[in-house]
Amino acid sequence: MKLTILGCHSATPKTTTHPTAQILEIKNHSFLIDCGEGTQVQMRKYKVKFSKIKRIFISHLHGDHVFGLIGLISTFRLLNRETELTVYGPKGIKELIVTQLRLSESFAGYPIKFHELSSKESELIFEDKKVAVYTIPLKHRIYTNGFLFKEKIGERKLDMKEISKYDEIEICDYQNLKNGKDFKLSSGTIIKNEKLTTDPNKPLSYAFCSDTMYHEPIIPIIQNVDLLYHEATFLKDKEDLALKTKHSTAQQAAMIAKKANVGKLILGHFSNRYKTYEGFESEACKIFSNTSLTSAGAVFELN
Amino acid sequence: MKLTILGCHSATPKTTTHPTAQILEIKNHSFLIDCGEGTQVQMRKYKVKFSKIKRIFISHLHGDHVFGLIGLISTFRLLNRETELTVYGPKGIKELIVTQLRLSESFAGYPIKFHELSSKESELIFEDKKVAVYTIPLKHRIYTNGFLFKEKIGERKLDMKEISKYDEIEICDYQNLKNGKDFKLSSGTIIKNEKLTTDPNKPLSYAFCSDTMYHEPIIPIIQNVDLLYHEATFLKDKEDLALKTKHSTAQQAAMIAKKANVGKLILGHFSNRYKTYEGFESEACKIFSNTSLTSAGAVFELN
Repeated sequence: MKLTILGCHSATPKTTTHPTAQILEIKNHSFLIDCGEGTQVQMRKYKVKFSKIKRIFISHLHGDHVFGLIGLISTFRLLNRETELTVYGPKGIKELIVTQLRLSESFAGYPIKFHELSSKESELIFEDKKVAVYTIPLKHRIYTNGFLFKEKIGERKLDMKEISKYDEIEICDYQNLKNGKDFKLSSGTIIKNEKLTTDPNKPLSYAFCSDTMYHEPIIPIIQNVDLLYHEATFLKDKEDLALKTKHSTAQQAAMIAKKANVGKLILGHFSNRYKTYEGFESEACKIFSNTSLTSAGAVFELN
Repeated sequence: MKLTILGCHSATPKTTTHPTAQILEIKNHSFLIDCGEGTQVQMRKYKVKFSKIKRIFISHLHGDHVFGLIGLISTFRLLNRETELTVYGPKGIKELIVTQLRLSESFAGYPIKFHELSSKESELIFEDKKVAVYTIPLKHRIYTNGFLFKEKIGERKLDMKEISKYDEIEICDYQNLKNGKDFKLSSGTIIKNEKLTTDPNKPLSYAFCSDTMYHEPIIPIIQNVDLLYHEATFLKDKEDLALKTKHSTAQQAAMIAKKANVGKLILGHFSNRYKTYEGFESEACKIFSNTSLTSAGAVFELN
């Protein structure tokens, strides 16, 4: 699992700061998460393959998370895209895009499916054999979801040293073993699966939480995730401003990470009022030590 | 008069190419012309004062000319703008912006006036004492206008050497002289204005024409302008593609410049298929020698 940060600042794009956008590579998917203005340029800068993006997850309809979407959708057409694109986002996202296409007398040229969200409960919005994606209802000024990306438990791993002891086990039997089945020898003896295989890799998980005020109801949803991105728009001396604008401080993000027992916390969505960000890391580390800052181009890999 | 190019490429923004946007400084106005995605970042890069932008002129609703507008309008609010903003553009531009503000549960926070255009004839859309702006109906795949910015003829200039010969002429008389009035001495003698003043500066004019196919009806409107920006999406070997997409070649832009007897021609809206642009200049110069290319950050000053 590999997360590439394309932008991690709040509000308005500047020459050196970019609004929220991330690419999550997980089990052969490339998911785009949020799409502020200029995201397509950041994608080019960091060598993201446009054709690999088949699903886009939009947390909410504030501009710094969505104003780049219409441009990206238009660019896909210019690149002669034919593959279907699915956009997950709050109710209204279809109108947002369709209105702009209609007024520009334009069209996507490839199928776009809008999966509009309105539930206030966490729900499963995508799954295949290897991955599941759930919403994380957040508390912001506008209807907002984070997203929880979970690998499913994989196949059991063949223990070739053990298997080689039995001539009767052939390649065509391997998939059954990976699926957890025991093996029956021609003598009638049953060899337990656990003797022939080892446990699969631990499935990994990533939770994206932007934008939100300090909101404990998300804790059971993100409990024990390997990687948590939590917004930290302000430092704790601006806790009143965080409350007023329904954002979080670095300290609050760390409290959520600690209570949810996550593996690692990464912070972003920094307010443009800050020129340096060390303060965010040190403030959070006092509560949750395994904290890092995000920055455009930063890559977080989980194994 | 000073024109700053913020972006001069067609279609999709890339790391080194930016869609159409220009700042025209004319008689204390800073007009923004077109606003592709990323324009606000280019404005920061080239030190454009956001607070000076009071009027924005949008040629048409294709994304590479307007997708940056909602972001800029939002940023104005974050900068606590209070001054009125007027947006000139095709019918539909109000719906484009208002829909996006509504769906993001946002608002401008300052007055925005939309001056929607639908006429197929050139019309006066703004004037004050010093400047007039007219539309230039273009021929593209969608309703499109160029814009003609004309300085008005200024005040006559005082000839201080002549004036100093007459003790009776005082500072409080100067404005009348600038306005062209004769001066009557107490003896009853009339001194003709032309003896005391010289002609005002020649008023300057700038015509912005993007996007359009080769379209001779614009010639009488832009006749004799000092500076013409004309799109040149393709070179002449792609004239068939220019016709099909209703764009122009460098050669066609130069033919328009020549027939309209303009002072200087500048080219832009280059297709992303080209990696270098010398071909555009040399192709145009064969027909109209005073041709230059635009590039992001380029400045054209007229005196």
